[in-house]
Amino acid sequence: MTTSAPAATGPHVLRQINVTAVLTALRQADGATARLTDLVTSTGLSRPAVTRALADLRDADLVELVADETTRIGRPAQRARFRAELGHVAGVDVGPHKILIKIADLAGKILTTHRIATPPGATGPDVFDLVSTALDQAVTASDLTHADLWAVCVGTPGIVDRDHGEVLLAPSIPGWAGLPVVPQLRDQLHCPVLIDNDVNLAVLAERWRGTAIGVESLVFVQWGERIGTGLIIDGAPYRGAHAAAGELGFLDLGLPPNDPTGRPAANEGTGPFERLVGAAAIHELAVAMTAGGRDPGLHAQLTRPGDRDITGLFTAAAAGNPTAAAVIDRVAARFAQGLSALILLLDPEQVVIGGGLSLAGETLLEPIRRHLAGRTLSATSLRASSLGEDAVALGAVRHALDATADRLTTSP
Amino acid sequence: MTTSAPAATGPHVLRQINVTAVLTALRQADGATARLTDLVTSTGLSRPAVTRALADLRDADLVELVADETTRIGRPAQRARFRAELGHVAGVDVGPHKILIKIADLAGKILTTHRIATPPGATGPDVFDLVSTALDQAVTASDLTHADLWAVCVGTPGIVDRDHGEVLLAPSIPGWAGLPVVPQLRDQLHCPVLIDNDVNLAVLAERWRGTAIGVESLVFVQWGERIGTGLIIDGAPYRGAHAAAGELGFLDLGLPPNDPTGRPAANEGTGPFERLVGAAAIHELAVAMTAGGRDPGLHAQLTRPGDRDITGLFTAAAAGNPTAAAVIDRVAARFAQGLSALILLLDPEQVVIGGGLSLAGETLLEPIRRHLAGRTLSATSLRASSLGEDAVALGAVRHALDATADRLTTSP
Repeated sequence: MTTSAPAATGPHVLRQINVTAVLTALRQADGATARLTDLVTSTGLSRPAVTRALADLRDADLVELVADETTRIGRPAQRARFRAELGHVAGVDVGPHKILIKIADLAGKILTTHRIATPPGATGPDVFDLVSTALDQAVTASDLTHADLWAVCVGTPGIVDRDHGEVLLAPSIPGWAGLPVVPQLRDQLHCPVLIDNDVNLAVLAERWRGTAIGVESLVFVQWGERIGTGLIIDGAPYRGAHAAAGELGFLDLGLPPNDPTGRPAANEGTGPFERLVGAAAIHELAVAMTAGGRDPGLHAQLTRPGDRDITGLFTAAAAGNPTAAAVIDRVAARFAQGLSALILLLDPEQVVIGGGLSLAGETLLEPIRRHLAGRTLSATSLRASSLGEDAVALGAVRHALDATADRLTTSP
Repeated sequence: MTTSAPAATGPHVLRQINVTAVLTALRQADGATARLTDLVTSTGLSRPAVTRALADLRDADLVELVADETTRIGRPAQRARFRAELGHVAGVDVGPHKILIKIADLAGKILTTHRIATPPGATGPDVFDLVSTALDQAVTASDLTHADLWAVCVGTPGIVDRDHGEVLLAPSIPGWAGLPVVPQLRDQLHCPVLIDNDVNLAVLAERWRGTAIGVESLVFVQWGERIGTGLIIDGAPYRGAHAAAGELGFLDLGLPPNDPTGRPAANEGTGPFERLVGAAAIHELAVAMTAGGRDPGLHAQLTRPGDRDITGLFTAAAAGNPTAAAVIDRVAARFAQGLSALILLLDPEQVVIGGGLSLAGETLLEPIRRHLAGRTLSATSLRASSLGEDAVALGAVRHALDATADRLTTSP
């Protein structure tokens, strides 16, 4: 028996903790360069500890010291620069209609955004082949090779077993669930491959570079044909005890007493709230409320064969069309009822609306706020996503970057 | 500039971290005694580190070494015993009908439980005087003096500003909100005084010594006249961005389409879901459904002047009365609709029902589980509280004990 420091918590562990803290601060710094003073402030460590950590990081080739060109007097001070070009990550958004890939360096600078439309009728294996090819194209377009990728994260709709890297259920992409997506991509790319639910990644992006930077309790609502949410609670992603938290789409509110339209019939796999305010339900409501000569022009537009696009509805409302405004008010009232349940139970600091419906912006958000008033007890802010269709791929980049932290700090 | 270890993270900090870890493990140990081997296992520290931490703790008089009487062979091994008698805490439950105080030692052993009924019509200042006197009585009954109290925690209904120790709103105790409860008790007792919402404390008790020991994601639903919830998410209390999370009582579900009874009129300060399934609403529903000769006996019992007790309803249902069972089924259907929203959004591992309605036990829980089926996507377990009216005071003890941790570990 010795009296030396315990194996798990010796001085070398402390030194490693400091190195990790400095590296993390440096990666988060603007442009991934920082002065010694900035790092002392952002890490809370002493100047000598930061200096020593920077020396360790330089020895490991992770950091270089560059002249600070903003120095006005005397010889230039030095800035530490994280060598973000040492590695790269890919974020992949696999959706029913498109595949969107972003390649970033280790500081999160996006080098390439590559988008391909998924042909109608594409099945799971077709989609996998498209993802595989598109990844190669995006890597090449970034002047990189597979060996430069340190991690890849795939976002997908449906229910995901993150631990086993499996898509368990994905009704919107037939034949996608159950494919060995993660092991096959790992074989192709020879790097860690992660997979997560698309909305769980979108909420990371909103907090990183979207409309909710630094917000500690945050809900991202993906609003299109389906309705899903991603949750951040006290700064950490929350997925629930059975990975089923945030299932707003399955809320059953009954019908509001003052809402005369019947509830749409149940569809396989959709929830009651999706059937009440999803894009298809909005289209159906708009067709019903413009019929009977109440708005022939808008009605004709909404009932064009083979076209269930509802953007015309929002354009008309924004231009002052009262029937369109009445439809949107009804939709907003329904949505506010479900959203008020979420706000009453979770009390988030902010709710960000993403997905196709978020493109309507204030035309839709203003009446929702109006209908929320009196239904909630706290002042949760409601905003539209500013990331558009980039949110999932960008969140996948963020998640992949987090996964590279270990590789960076186990070597020095 | 020196090259010594930084001030914030030197070896003495490590040593302090180990002391804290050992002390925490020892306080959580059964009977607050443990063998060296147990502490090595529970802390993950090395044997020498635990030995050294125990020596530090003995030097600070926080721990003593006692012979282990379970040793079968050779000389007795030693057990470390946390000197839980060094200090004490009080947990105080201030409700509209009673004040319940528990005094515990530093290992959480309850020495005294003191309960006094609040006289009808008592106002806030009356209640404060009762709390003040009852605390003195409980301390005396425990053979202690004020100086033995290291911390006191008060649980109260309503909305609490924990940081400023103020009750902002408490409709159930007239004149209670706004009183300087915390500063006055601090002056009286000369120790830290904490205050929190009653359900936020009850959920701590359920996780500590109730029906949800160690559960990481947990909802406690207080179900009586009012409906409130306390949330634990990923092991930590969650109160929301504006201290307004878990407001199940304010959910507005509209009326279930198959539920013919009208919604009770709005009361000042109550929420729609409380008005639908709170104790008063259940009484009203039971009176309506037993009227018109459908169950004269139960109807007479429910409409006795000055008595709105509904325990007879549950007794009758448990004895096979079909009308009583039909009332409870209707209540369960309504409650399940609200609870399903909570489960869909939060996906907790377990929901514990407390408050007056929980006394109905399986007579109420079984039909709720039946109505939940098909409304939720995950297998959340639903149980009645086993702590009865002790939950809030016990949770207050737990919270006060947590507040003593600093005092214990800053000295050695």
